[in-house]
Amino acid sequence: MTPSRTRTKPKPLSKSELAGLNAWFRAANYVSVGQIYLLDNALLERDLTAEDIKPRLLGHWGTTPGLNLIYTHLNRLIRQRDVDAIFLAGPGHGGPAAVANAYLEGTYSEVYPSIGDDGDGLKALFRQFSFPGGIPSHVAPETPGSIHEGGELGYVLSHAYGAAMDNPDLVVAAVVGDGEFETGPLATSWHANKFVDPTVDGVVLPILHLNGYKIANPTVPARIPRPELISLLEGYGHEVITVEGDDPADVHQQMAAAMDQAHDLIRAIQDEARAGKRSLRRKQPERPRWPMILLVTPKGWTGPDKVDGVQVEGTWRAHQVPLSETRTNDKHRAQLQTWLESYDPGSLFDDEGRLVESVRALAPVGTRRMSANPHANGGLLRKPLTIKDFREYAVPVKAPGGSVNEATKVFGAMVADIVRDNPESFRLFGPDETESNRLGAVYDATTKVFAGEILPVDEHLAHSGRVMEMLSEHTCQGWLEGYLLTGRHGLFSCYEAFIHIVDSMFNQHAKWLNTTRELDWRPPVSSLNYLLTSHVWRQDHNGFSHQDPGFIDHVVNKKAEVVRVYLPPDTNTLLSTMAHCLASKHYVNVVVAGKQPQFDWLDAEQAADHCARGVGIWDWAGNDEGDPEVVIASAGDIPTLEALAATAMLREHLPELRIRFINVVDLMRLQDEREHPHGLSDRDFDTLFTTDKPVIFAYHGYPWLIHRLTYRRTNHDNLHVRGYKEEGTTTTPFDMVMMNDIDRYHLVIDVIDRVPGLGSRAAQLRQNMVDARRRAKEWTREHGDDIPEVKDWKWAEEVDGDPAATSGTSADFA
Amino acid sequence: MTPSRTRTKPKPLSKSELAGLNAWFRAANYVSVGQIYLLDNALLERDLTAEDIKPRLLGHWGTTPGLNLIYTHLNRLIRQRDVDAIFLAGPGHGGPAAVANAYLEGTYSEVYPSIGDDGDGLKALFRQFSFPGGIPSHVAPETPGSIHEGGELGYVLSHAYGAAMDNPDLVVAAVVGDGEFETGPLATSWHANKFVDPTVDGVVLPILHLNGYKIANPTVPARIPRPELISLLEGYGHEVITVEGDDPADVHQQMAAAMDQAHDLIRAIQDEARAGKRSLRRKQPERPRWPMILLVTPKGWTGPDKVDGVQVEGTWRAHQVPLSETRTNDKHRAQLQTWLESYDPGSLFDDEGRLVESVRALAPVGTRRMSANPHANGGLLRKPLTIKDFREYAVPVKAPGGSVNEATKVFGAMVADIVRDNPESFRLFGPDETESNRLGAVYDATTKVFAGEILPVDEHLAHSGRVMEMLSEHTCQGWLEGYLLTGRHGLFSCYEAFIHIVDSMFNQHAKWLNTTRELDWRPPVSSLNYLLTSHVWRQDHNGFSHQDPGFIDHVVNKKAEVVRVYLPPDTNTLLSTMAHCLASKHYVNVVVAGKQPQFDWLDAEQAADHCARGVGIWDWAGNDEGDPEVVIASAGDIPTLEALAATAMLREHLPELRIRFINVVDLMRLQDEREHPHGLSDRDFDTLFTTDKPVIFAYHGYPWLIHRLTYRRTNHDNLHVRGYKEEGTTTTPFDMVMMNDIDRYHLVIDVIDRVPGLGSRAAQLRQNMVDARRRAKEWTREHGDDIPEVKDWKWAEEVDGDPAATSGTSADFA
Repeated sequence: MTPSRTRTKPKPLSKSELAGLNAWFRAANYVSVGQIYLLDNALLERDLTAEDIKPRLLGHWGTTPGLNLIYTHLNRLIRQRDVDAIFLAGPGHGGPAAVANAYLEGTYSEVYPSIGDDGDGLKALFRQFSFPGGIPSHVAPETPGSIHEGGELGYVLSHAYGAAMDNPDLVVAAVVGDGEFETGPLATSWHANKFVDPTVDGVVLPILHLNGYKIANPTVPARIPRPELISLLEGYGHEVITVEGDDPADVHQQMAAAMDQAHDLIRAIQDEARAGKRSLRRKQPERPRWPMILLVTPKGWTGPDKVDGVQVEGTWRAHQVPLSETRTNDKHRAQLQTWLESYDPGSLFDDEGRLVESVRALAPVGTRRMSANPHANGGLLRKPLTIKDFREYAVPVKAPGGSVNEATKVFGAMVADIVRDNPESFRLFGPDETESNRLGAVYDATTKVFAGEILPVDEHLAHSGRVMEMLSEHTCQGWLEGYLLTGRHGLFSCYEAFIHIVDSMFNQHAKWLNTTRELDWRPPVSSLNYLLTSHVWRQDHNGFSHQDPGFIDHVVNKKAEVVRVYLPPDTNTLLSTMAHCLASKHYVNVVVAGKQPQFDWLDAEQAADHCARGVGIWDWAGNDEGDPEVVIASAGDIPTLEALAATAMLREHLPELRIRFINVVDLMRLQDEREHPHGLSDRDFDTLFTTDKPVIFAYHGYPWLIHRLTYRRTNHDNLHVRGYKEEGTTTTPFDMVMMNDIDRYHLVIDVIDRVPGLGSRAAQLRQNMVDARRRAKEWTREHGDDIPEVKDWKWAEEVDGDPAATSGTSADFA
Repeated sequence: MTPSRTRTKPKPLSKSELAGLNAWFRAANYVSVGQIYLLDNALLERDLTAEDIKPRLLGHWGTTPGLNLIYTHLNRLIRQRDVDAIFLAGPGHGGPAAVANAYLEGTYSEVYPSIGDDGDGLKALFRQFSFPGGIPSHVAPETPGSIHEGGELGYVLSHAYGAAMDNPDLVVAAVVGDGEFETGPLATSWHANKFVDPTVDGVVLPILHLNGYKIANPTVPARIPRPELISLLEGYGHEVITVEGDDPADVHQQMAAAMDQAHDLIRAIQDEARAGKRSLRRKQPERPRWPMILLVTPKGWTGPDKVDGVQVEGTWRAHQVPLSETRTNDKHRAQLQTWLESYDPGSLFDDEGRLVESVRALAPVGTRRMSANPHANGGLLRKPLTIKDFREYAVPVKAPGGSVNEATKVFGAMVADIVRDNPESFRLFGPDETESNRLGAVYDATTKVFAGEILPVDEHLAHSGRVMEMLSEHTCQGWLEGYLLTGRHGLFSCYEAFIHIVDSMFNQHAKWLNTTRELDWRPPVSSLNYLLTSHVWRQDHNGFSHQDPGFIDHVVNKKAEVVRVYLPPDTNTLLSTMAHCLASKHYVNVVVAGKQPQFDWLDAEQAADHCARGVGIWDWAGNDEGDPEVVIASAGDIPTLEALAATAMLREHLPELRIRFINVVDLMRLQDEREHPHGLSDRDFDTLFTTDKPVIFAYHGYPWLIHRLTYRRTNHDNLHVRGYKEEGTTTTPFDMVMMNDIDRYHLVIDVIDRVPGLGSRAAQLRQNMVDARRRAKEWTREHGDDIPEVKDWKWAEEVDGDPAATSGTSADFA
């Protein structure tokens, strides 16, 4: 390993160029401080009074000057080299910086005409920041040029790498705060540089901003020996270019040189890779060492050095508002005025409050402005996904339960075609689980991307490809979010239990989608689609730690307008559901489906109809003749299997009992139409579920969620839900359902216990069910496998002939 | 930086010592393979038949031989140097290894007498693994010597560092799988070495096991140039000792030398630090570079090289069961037999199936066995927390609302005393938020630990201390779990929204607690206590990304026996609640409380009574005289404030309306007593909430949770809940509650809308409330602050005199 240059020597800036850059930097700082503090007197036309100051000071100064410096120099690079770049602020709480630069570039006034580019506009800009009815304090969806809110730390690099994918000419500048540096998701996302294909992807330029402090502590990377930090960053695979100082003129020279050097390196790597594109797949080039910048400047740089005699600049005390009593404390207010004046606003804004032309000219033009770059407003660039009718992949189903398929395996062929038909705008993401989740058919069409060493033994691994696998759910999620927010399409396939790892990332994405719904200038982006498989009922081999269906519960807490949950019960319904989700916009779609061989229940047309309705009566399964005595409902593939097996036994042994069988694919149909756009009306719900008959509901996840969705329904008191009640271990599949009382035998018992007046035959059947459960348990413990009468069970193939007939040994229960 | 030794040269093992170690290694491998495959014929007394093989092969071979190698050599170190050590397997799916070694050490038979140390015991051990009614496939709670299940990857180092804290003589060997290496939580947890105090803490010895593959992919660290990986690990601050090979004899020599070298380094660092203990705080020693081992061996090492002509050993194909058809495929079965015989079981077990004495003698003795080390069964070592009566910290409360305190700030003094009174067994954990969460009083008693450079400007920062702050919720959670599972006490203080970052870690810990409840040999450990502050209603400065109360929803999905949720409404109730939680055992306690100045409602005795009941009528607030027309209920500090303000207005303007005011501290009281041990009986619930009167419930979090907890209650249909409905931004506190319709004015409207026959005065009051909301909104948007009539409001101080009197401008509403 050659040691990286730790400091660049040349001083590329002429005196006038330096002055210009520093003017922009001063202007950005001025507009940032103004936002944090000023209600009025935006141009300091008179001495500041208490009334000029906001009553509540909400904002973060500490990181802001660093962000302004970086933005300033990215603009220089863009202008000088016509670079297509976007800007992601890891320390997104430095919102004033992003807003200030968007304002100086003119974009802000274009997007929000009420905030003009003159003195009135500047005053309005200042006032609205962190002000009721105004804009948030972070780099929020409301901020032009942003795809990264930054309030929750850790995701800036994964977002950035997602944005860079399939954007060969894009430079994604990603500022990593040294506090954020300590988070887990950020720590591993450095390795995303091993998944970049320089022939088709753009580049991420990480800028680690070492300002030394968090809210109340020094940061780890600032307090380890610098050579150790460089060793770490080089170990992450980067060429490190260091810029360090506190004298703006000096730092400007260093930073300009660093940007040039970084961009030279980027172009050299890309040129080489793209020139040799064909040969890349044959011989193995060395993995590129992409550049990064280590920027070391004081926290709260250019702000108050000391306040009330205490050091503020360069310490954690500069994190939020360095001067906290500017409304009531004259000394503080005077210091604020001095601080603002230090940027010499008179030289930056003309008499009308407009940015002077010489500074304005330093902004890039049109969509080259990072605040106006359409890549940071992906809905502008998004094209509909090309996807064939799901029926082309559907499995033939002659009769319910007459055939067996692995739902995700069949879906894999659909994904392969989507990859083929959307070669530059669709990727599949997952933590080393694509094959495990039976989506391997996608490798007929593409490969997994890996820029590291590839050995002959590796399968489906190449420097180029459409499948992104890293054992980090955080990175997968961040990649996909970045990819979607820049206008493309994707799918995240994950073990159900471990999607909880990204609960908090989901929260932030759902909040982003919800906020942007109300921003006309941000057209919708593609939905974020989860395929959760290897689910709770089929983790019998991995045991309790892998058994958790609670992500659905987590998701439904977010705004109904942006979340959808689907539980397709078989292969064709999975295909129909996925086709719908993948083509949809601006939702988070959660689809839960198993990967193991399972019965097919519906053919393609039936599946299409059923999924369109989202919930429906399966007439072939029930015998209610429009007047049920009991409703058996299911949601999820395994609950549906058990519920159908229970129904079959009831129909065989209690043929006079009128059963309605309902399957729910779209979980949100259960909710009230006033609560969720997909919700059924009370009338429709009552028609389906009756107003007074017992409903035995077999549900995939935690049972109380069904109650939470239906508690206002007329028949809620008669609803009895079985689901996962946190019982599990390493065992057999049927033992898993028995442990949670959602097995066929227990569902029969539930029906018998809740339908009045069934008589002695039912009592006998009930006892037989109790015996069957005991026998199944004993068999399993003796043989280590499920009992044959369960394994061999299937729904009758000749529904018309004998609708209740079952194969297997069900006669034993008579 | 001096370059690390990348390979150790000496061959420390004599021929007989080598043979002994290899015999243990063979025995462990044999017992591992036997667990995965064999139902019977445990000692290969005859050729394997189909019936000898388990019908379902559930287990992971790939990582197992590496774990066995490491265990073997740790045992050598323990024996030779009398080291006190525990073993954490990051790749916890290699459960067979942990079980095998515990069995060979004799611990397994001691803990589970039904699994004897003879041939029958060996057969039973094999059979039970991953078998219904048996034991899980991972390093589960059932495994003696384990504090780390390892099913969910990423937490082994943070657990290990938590275990090492305040255990000065302990060596925590932590195996990091190279798959796990890619996860975010693991990636940052390397930096936990900057928070070790060598004077009082034990040491973590990380062993990065590079076996090259995950489920279906090469691993990142295996496919970057080795110098780059070394640079990364040195950048993490470690001295790296490399062991690499595939010839057991050679690897044994290397590994023995590496262990010696690592332990020499550890002792040198500790000796130096402890010798100079006093001077440590004065002058700054260089941060120690702790050793780690990089172990490179093939995946599935010593297993089948090829199967059906395809390479298996050294590839991802060895991840689970290398021979998958051993029951049905004679060739596979013969290969399994050859594989098992390769370990020469005849030389390892005597005629009765007992481990031969020469091998048995290689195990450490008694509690030096890692499988029997009490540190890995923390309930054995746990001593009750020393904690003073909370009343010593209570604030005087003359009348409800008569004083104002910052609840967490007052609680800080209690934490300070707990630190003083439990100097070696209590720590406070948090991601850079202790000061922000107003717990700064703890610094009267202690400091934050940081082993990096400390500057004069730093406050409360030292090489020794009780406060653990790193900007990684994952690391904080892992530390605390490791600390608790080894028998100590702790508290995690966190912003409410960002505790979702550890949702999945909470899941795993709750599952661990739930499983160990049923293991008699594992006494309970201290509860895991969360203090969630800077909560949803008081993140008006950070905005939408910081507003999420859903962790409660997440927690209540886990087994009722291990989860508790508390919402203390004021300072004294917070003190009472925390005292209870900190002293409790084997729960996860979630406490949500604000850090901002808030009214006190209850004095110490009232708080004690109220918290003991968990829910109660506040007679002083209501006027129902035992016969309410409406119930106003609250849970959470801000909802309680709004609900009381609403009650005051109603009592002033509709004095004839009989209102019952109920406050809920212990959320689980709402649930049915059959669902949760804290649940109220239906009778008690009905007595409190009535069976037929409207209940207006102001709740801290997502409102539907209250419905989910109460849907079976008699009066549920009359329950109307207000809470956070995912509306938020940067604004004022009162605007936040208005945005979510949980403000005092809206609660009054809710009451008027639901109590029949209130007449025209109520109609007028309702209109006044609508006007008040509009006026409050306008005021806020104009002034950037909350309206004075809200800011100045307080509950009457003279409750007896005029219970409904309020200050402020409430008369406006008449």
